[in-house]
Amino acid sequence: MRQEDPVATPGEADAMRRAIELAARGMGSTSPNPVVGAVILDAHGEIAGEGWHQQAGGPHAEVHALRAAGDAARGGTAVVTLEPCNHTGRTGPCAQALIAAGVSRVVYAVADPTPAATGGGATLAAAGIDVESGLLEAEAARGNEVWLTAAREQRPFVLWKYASTLDGRIAAADGTSRWISSAASRADVHRLRAESDAVVVGSGTLRADDPHLAVRGVEGTFTQPLRVVVDTNAKITPGARVLDGTAPTLVAVAEDTDTAHLPGVDVARLPRTGSGVSVPGLLAELYGRGVRSVLLEGGPTLAGAFVAAGAVDKVVGYLAPALLGAGPAALGDAGITTIAHALRLDVAEIERIGPDLRITAYPSRTEEN
Amino acid sequence: MRQEDPVATPGEADAMRRAIELAARGMGSTSPNPVVGAVILDAHGEIAGEGWHQQAGGPHAEVHALRAAGDAARGGTAVVTLEPCNHTGRTGPCAQALIAAGVSRVVYAVADPTPAATGGGATLAAAGIDVESGLLEAEAARGNEVWLTAAREQRPFVLWKYASTLDGRIAAADGTSRWISSAASRADVHRLRAESDAVVVGSGTLRADDPHLAVRGVEGTFTQPLRVVVDTNAKITPGARVLDGTAPTLVAVAEDTDTAHLPGVDVARLPRTGSGVSVPGLLAELYGRGVRSVLLEGGPTLAGAFVAAGAVDKVVGYLAPALLGAGPAALGDAGITTIAHALRLDVAEIERIGPDLRITAYPSRTEEN
Ligand SMILES: NC(=O)c1ccc[n+]([C@@H]2O[C@H](COP(=O)([O-])OP(=O)(O)OC[C@H]3O[C@@H](n4cnc5c(N)ncnc54)[C@H](OP(=O)(O)O)[C@@H]3O)[C@@H](O)[C@H]2O)c1
Ligand SMILES: NC(=O)c1ccc[n+]([C@@H]2O[C@H](COP(=O)([O-])OP(=O)(O)OC[C@H]3O[C@@H](n4cnc5c(N)ncnc54)[C@H](OP(=O)(O)O)[C@@H]3O)[C@@H](O)[C@H]2O)c1
Repeated sequence: MRQEDPVATPGEADAMRRAIELAARGMGSTSPNPVVGAVILDAHGEIAGEGWHQQAGGPHAEVHALRAAGDAARGGTAVVTLEPCNHTGRTGPCAQALIAAGVSRVVYAVADPTPAATGGGATLAAAGIDVESGLLEAEAARGNEVWLTAAREQRPFVLWKYASTLDGRIAAADGTSRWISSAASRADVHRLRAESDAVVVGSGTLRADDPHLAVRGVEGTFTQPLRVVVDTNAKITPGARVLDGTAPTLVAVAEDTDTAHLPGVDVARLPRTGSGVSVPGLLAELYGRGVRSVLLEGGPTLAGAFVAAGAVDKVVGYLAPALLGAGPAALGDAGITTIAHALRLDVAEIERIGPDLRITAYPSRTEEN
Repeated sequence: MRQEDPVATPGEADAMRRAIELAARGMGSTSPNPVVGAVILDAHGEIAGEGWHQQAGGPHAEVHALRAAGDAARGGTAVVTLEPCNHTGRTGPCAQALIAAGVSRVVYAVADPTPAATGGGATLAAAGIDVESGLLEAEAARGNEVWLTAAREQRPFVLWKYASTLDGRIAAADGTSRWISSAASRADVHRLRAESDAVVVGSGTLRADDPHLAVRGVEGTFTQPLRVVVDTNAKITPGARVLDGTAPTLVAVAEDTDTAHLPGVDVARLPRTGSGVSVPGLLAELYGRGVRSVLLEGGPTLAGAFVAAGAVDKVVGYLAPALLGAGPAALGDAGITTIAHALRLDVAEIERIGPDLRITAYPSRTEEN
């Protein structure tokens, strides 16, 4: 926990708020990089340039902002959501760019935890630049939750999404479920997909719904996420909608599964467990393929396995204002048998989406850490 | 549906808002009467008196307000949430009191639907008073939902309350459930009880929790609600907490049930059905005993039977931000087998109560009427 508040002017705090907004524009197109926003204030504290990291491989936020500011950066302040990088990746190190531009002060929100990039702050300070960290750290960290979690856990960030009735049912007793939630909620899910590197469903959902899983109806820049079907025994048939060419698809099976009936299909072979394939194994496989964020779309059985594996980082529930009194529940067995072991969450946001409620929550840190 | 908006001044609308607030103060102590609020504006439109119906048998709101206004009522306007009554019940008719006080105008929100009391507006108009109805009708009707529903349906208004995890569980797999919801939510439930004439649970809840069901920790005037246990075969034992003397208790059993082991206990004998006792029979019995509002506290089996009987008028769900993945669901079988027959609700309010979410909803009118 930080003890002291960072020393920053109100103008710098405003600039950081703006930088956090700018950073969010990169959501869905910067993976495996973080989202980053930067604002350059000139020597008088006026905004001279803005930028954000737009896509992996493209210039970093600081570079965009410095270009926009030009000479006005000299003697000014760079306000950045993440500690400027120190390494030379696909682009040059930002710390050097800031030094070269002659800024006299750098304020950043979140320290870079990655071994390769860390040390930007120290490099800047060594060059005589006044460096301040931690301004609006919590907000900025939330905006970069995917990248920070992936860096810390060395696995993708997992957002579990579900849609249920108020009494927690995802379908009626006869299996009918279209549509539990409203068109507005379904559109919102497409936005979540667009922000994710991969979308994951279990074989039960595949069989029940033959889902397509590609993003439709979302504006702006994004990359179609990898569609992942967790199908231990490769029961998927070549005609499944998810195997069309709209977006890449991965079928995750057990090591010993015969996949001869799926020529040309991208298959991942994972350790077999009692209930299917290993969830950590799946996440490691996806991480190795560059996936930093997973949208877990269910169903309840697979979601239960993710919860049991401690692999749910965020929950987005769409609650339809309806009651069923019967039918499958939103979350299946997660190995929790008594109330004291319930997975406690902190609710971050409640929004009305059409007639539905969207609840965004995070597993509480207190109990597990 | 009203076609025309009532003709009212901004001052009268303000006064009606105030009258609705005043009416709410009577909640929990006026049953079987409505809650009513009244504001007297003098001839200049200034507030001259306020009043509300405080308890059954006591003076009506108009009488309180006229007393407070004194001579200032002459030539003024009475703003009342409900059409002034026309009958002589335990107190004189309010229409006559308003005429005697010399008001020149009466504005009310909701027409009185009861045969005995209706006609107050016409009586006032016949006396030469300018009468306007329908001002802020929806808000005032909501404030009087209990009494209006009971008058229309000739049965008590039923509020089903439940507390569940986000995934709709009311207990863990091993039956542990204390406490799914927070202390703040439990305190809120006591407030709901205090506003109700009766609190109802099934024999399953009795057996599992041995609940006490009396109101504790609520300030202000209220009457302890009647505690009702729906226990077809009178399995309750004389030592049950609900049979202490704190508040009256009724045990609802089947017609043919032997209750010899319960001397001195108030027993209602109801028609037997496949799943227990008749829900409409129970509600008729309670209505006959003067109960106008029922807080149905569950559990899920009895709540399912109420939903199946079309006897839930309002739903208040306390959602604890936690996941269980197993355990009994908030709502049991309600005879709904397919998604098209889901009981659709309209969400009226979402509040945070401590860490929990409280969702208040009403069954949608559109599908059933
Ligand atoms: N409302 C919503 O938000 C939502 C979202 C998605 C789905 N659904 C509904 O959910 C229903 C399907 O749910 P479901 O629970 O039957 O299917 P599911 O969770 O999609 O798939 C479960 C299957 O995944 C496979 N799996 C592989 N590894 C696993 C592991 N480690 N742990 C657990 N499972 C593993 C298993 O089958 P194999 O052994 O064959 O691999 C398992 O039976 C459908 O009705 C669908 O419409 C609703
Ligand atoms: N979280 C919450 O909000 C909440 C609230 C209350 C209870 N609970 C929990 O709910 C659990 C008990 O629930 P439950 O479902 O077993 O019990 P329940 O709903 O309280 O009681 C069900 C019983 O009511 C009787 N009954 C009488 N007439 C009925 C009718 N027409 N239809 C249906 N039932 C009728 C039946 O028993 P007889 O045949 O013996 O009469 C039936 O078995 C406990 O674990 C308790 O802690 C939770």
